[in-house]
Amino acid sequence: MDGARNPSGRLEAQFAFLNEADRLKSVLRATTLVDGSRAENSGEHSWHLALYALVLADQAAPGVDINRVIRMLLIHDLVEIDVGDVPIHSANGLAHGSVETVVAEQRAADRIFGLLPNDLRDDLRVLWEEFEAAQTPDAVFAKSLDRVQPVMANLMSGGGTWTTYNVTADQLESRVGAKIARGAPALWDWVKARSAAFFD
Amino acid sequence: MDGARNPSGRLEAQFAFLNEADRLKSVLRATTLVDGSRAENSGEHSWHLALYALVLADQAAPGVDINRVIRMLLIHDLVEIDVGDVPIHSANGLAHGSVETVVAEQRAADRIFGLLPNDLRDDLRVLWEEFEAAQTPDAVFAKSLDRVQPVMANLMSGGGTWTTYNVTADQLESRVGAKIARGAPALWDWVKARSAAFFD
Ligand SMILES: [Ca+2]
Repeated sequence: MDGARNPSGRLEAQFAFLNEADRLKSVLRATTLVDGSRAENSGEHSWHLALYALVLADQAAPGVDINRVIRMLLIHDLVEIDVGDVPIHSANGLAHGSVETVVAEQRAADRIFGLLPNDLRDDLRVLWEEFEAAQTPDAVFAKSLDRVQPVMANLMSGGGTWTTYNVTADQLESRVGAKIARGAPALWDWVKARSAAFFD
Repeated sequence: MDGARNPSGRLEAQFAFLNEADRLKSVLRATTLVDGSRAENSGEHSWHLALYALVLADQAAPGVDINRVIRMLLIHDLVEIDVGDVPIHSANGLAHGSVETVVAEQRAADRIFGLLPNDLRDDLRVLWEEFEAAQTPDAVFAKSLDRVQPVMANLMSGGGTWTTYNVTADQLESRVGAKIARGAPALWDWVKARSAAFFD
């Protein structure tokens, strides 16, 4: 909606979006908390990733804008309110990024970002599309963090989704490692060395 | 710790902090989710607030740096890992900001930020102290958002902590409204008008 000439209508739209976003706290992921006590939800996951970006900024390639990376990570999973989380290792690694998922996520983005005033709707949609396309340095680094955080949760909790989905070291390398290494090679080296004991 | 001359020790410290931060997802607040289904945790609350900053940036005073506000909000509750959430309306509004709480939060900040490499430890500690002091324009706006988000959750869920703690309209105004109005006056006007029906 366009609330630009209507300050109260603009706030109405901003809060409609923020209240709808609250539902991301009820979307459960395959990954657990670090202590293994329960499934992680996509809202707290998004917070943790933004904190990853803040703390691991020195791992980004020159020219990466960490503030944009943080913004991207804050909104990257909102479409899951409609589509749910699609675990990387589910359906033998094939569900994630399937045509069906991509189409459903586009529809979800239309609906959810469409709650915002037009200017914000367009800004956040463009930022989300940039993340999804994973081509710009900012998006590549953001994707690396999105892949490394569940690896750390699995390491800390004693296996996690690697156990659930019977993941091999080769599958971890191809589904996850290559994407971490693309944006943050030292992070992949570090977690790969620490995951070796699990896969031996 | 100082991992500056030891890249692997630096990553060790960064991940020690990020893994410890995960525990914020297990700190429960008095406030519920917007749908009232369960208590909100402080990790997902921090995400929601950062999204508030992104979407309500046009409500900030001139000169406020939204990227710094977002960073502040990402780390503002980490001390709760040791201290827990102290609800605004608990103990007749007196527990929040008591000397005991402030001392405990300082100790928590020593321990938690102390897990980081020294440079990051100092940067994030200074940012958290700025938030706590609530004097700079960035901190004042961040505090306003931290106060308005639970008001919205109470409005949406039909009373929430206002019911739990028997809060009156005057108490809401003095404990919460004044702080929202300080950094974001139009937001207080907006939610105050919508809360009137609850308190009538
Ligand atoms: Ca994600």
